[in-house]
Amino acid sequence: MNDLAERRVRASAWFRDLRDRICAEFERLEDEAAGDERYGPGAPGRFVYTDWDRPDPSGEPGGGGTMGLMKGRLFEKVGVNISVVEGVFEPEFARSIPGAADDPRFFAAGISLVAHMKNPHVPAVHMNTRYLATTTDWFGGGADLNPPLPRAEDTADWLSAWQDCCDRHGPDHYERFKAWCDEYFYIPHRKRARGVGGIFYDRLGLGEGGAGQSEDWAGNFAFTRDVGETFLAAYPPLVRRNMARDWSAEDRAAQLRYRGLYAEFNLVYDRGTQFGLKTGGNVDAILMSLPPLAAWE
Amino acid sequence: MNDLAERRVRASAWFRDLRDRICAEFERLEDEAAGDERYGPGAPGRFVYTDWDRPDPSGEPGGGGTMGLMKGRLFEKVGVNISVVEGVFEPEFARSIPGAADDPRFFAAGISLVAHMKNPHVPAVHMNTRYLATTTDWFGGGADLNPPLPRAEDTADWLSAWQDCCDRHGPDHYERFKAWCDEYFYIPHRKRARGVGGIFYDRLGLGEGGAGQSEDWAGNFAFTRDVGETFLAAYPPLVRRNMARDWSAEDRAAQLRYRGLYAEFNLVYDRGTQFGLKTGGNVDAILMSLPPLAAWE
Repeated sequence: MNDLAERRVRASAWFRDLRDRICAEFERLEDEAAGDERYGPGAPGRFVYTDWDRPDPSGEPGGGGTMGLMKGRLFEKVGVNISVVEGVFEPEFARSIPGAADDPRFFAAGISLVAHMKNPHVPAVHMNTRYLATTTDWFGGGADLNPPLPRAEDTADWLSAWQDCCDRHGPDHYERFKAWCDEYFYIPHRKRARGVGGIFYDRLGLGEGGAGQSEDWAGNFAFTRDVGETFLAAYPPLVRRNMARDWSAEDRAAQLRYRGLYAEFNLVYDRGTQFGLKTGGNVDAILMSLPPLAAWE
Repeated sequence: MNDLAERRVRASAWFRDLRDRICAEFERLEDEAAGDERYGPGAPGRFVYTDWDRPDPSGEPGGGGTMGLMKGRLFEKVGVNISVVEGVFEPEFARSIPGAADDPRFFAAGISLVAHMKNPHVPAVHMNTRYLATTTDWFGGGADLNPPLPRAEDTADWLSAWQDCCDRHGPDHYERFKAWCDEYFYIPHRKRARGVGGIFYDRLGLGEGGAGQSEDWAGNFAFTRDVGETFLAAYPPLVRRNMARDWSAEDRAAQLRYRGLYAEFNLVYDRGTQFGLKTGGNVDAILMSLPPLAAWE
């Protein structure tokens, strides 16, 4: 797999395929909640897809993406976005990106999803994986669970799934990527974590020099695919386990406050959100992560 | 008025006096809405005050403040905060502050308020004025109107009040401070303003050098007091004019979306919020500006 064009095609195709499978599974979950009147009237939700183009500052084609949005009954709001973009980094920004200092051209493909659930007992969730290429290339991503009302059993099963996934690919993957997730999603001003964790990884495959041929592309692509498979295997059971539980007005209020915290993290700290908003990214796609309704006391 | 200690006392006393008068007027407005069942059950709201202390990193006393919070019927959530703090800027930060490069000690006093109203036809509002002293000293502040459903008559009356206020103090005050407000509260990623404007000013009184004796302290303090008086004279009539108007579910939905925009501005761009959160300020006081409930579609 040393052909760079082939790598782009394979990574992009994977993210699209994963998107299709996740959206199909989420629509199945909507169907399973169809008989539950607590989730309100109406038919089970379905994803609506919107394509967008990215104008590159260079004037060359910049690629684009597809937003998938479902405002359902069980899924109060879920966004699943894929994108395949290319272009030229601004010189100042290029200096901070591996392999871009002398040649600022880049390619990036990925999938990003955030699900906000109506039932406060069903955890919200975030998952993102991406492939980036400059004169070198690497993978990044992760997944973290965001239960408004955490339950030990859910957290244990979620983390166990990620430990198994990581252990299939590297002896220290879990330890490193679990700690990276805890660090990344910490909210300093609240002195607490955003959720209950998961994994976070970046620049996977980059050698010491951060330029030239990346290490073990096939192995790192296999890990990134396994992150998608693990999400697909681990999250739906947590939804099915909790979706029939009753919730009170107090539970809902706690959920709305938790979502305020979630919005704070994304708007104040999340590097992807900050970078996207300040550099002319697709605003609707970037902010699809924000909760449908949030409260601050 | 060349005695610096006397300046601190007079400025601090003014902010506290203004707070008392604003809170009394807002409670009067709550009383006036007492008979209106659309605002829900219960008694008219009253402010609840909470003192907080600021630990200075130097170990010396750092001052503190008082949060005033009313969760009423007409006022869905309104915070009126005052603070009088002193301490020592971190060396790196001190270099960016007038008069603090060689002596990083500072003093700051101010008032800050944000009102989120239950009726979508009643504009939300923000007002803040402050006095800062290092080896020099200056005033800053402003007020801007944030109607979820703007009306030309309200905007015209609001801006007219600020023009009159500014014209009493300087021939170009209004032109400069109106433009500064429009620039400050612009949300680049939404390509729109947060609200319909008002005034914004900073470093008022600083001479060219930005150190030593500030210019016309008495005149600038008089302007800052007039900003408070103008707010107190201009905002309540906009509340009384609109508080009896009916609103629909669509109006409420538009208000919640508007508040999402408001939260975005405060969390992504507002310098005071960003600075406060990242330097260990009082989180509850800083985030009191956030809406009680907000929506993102």
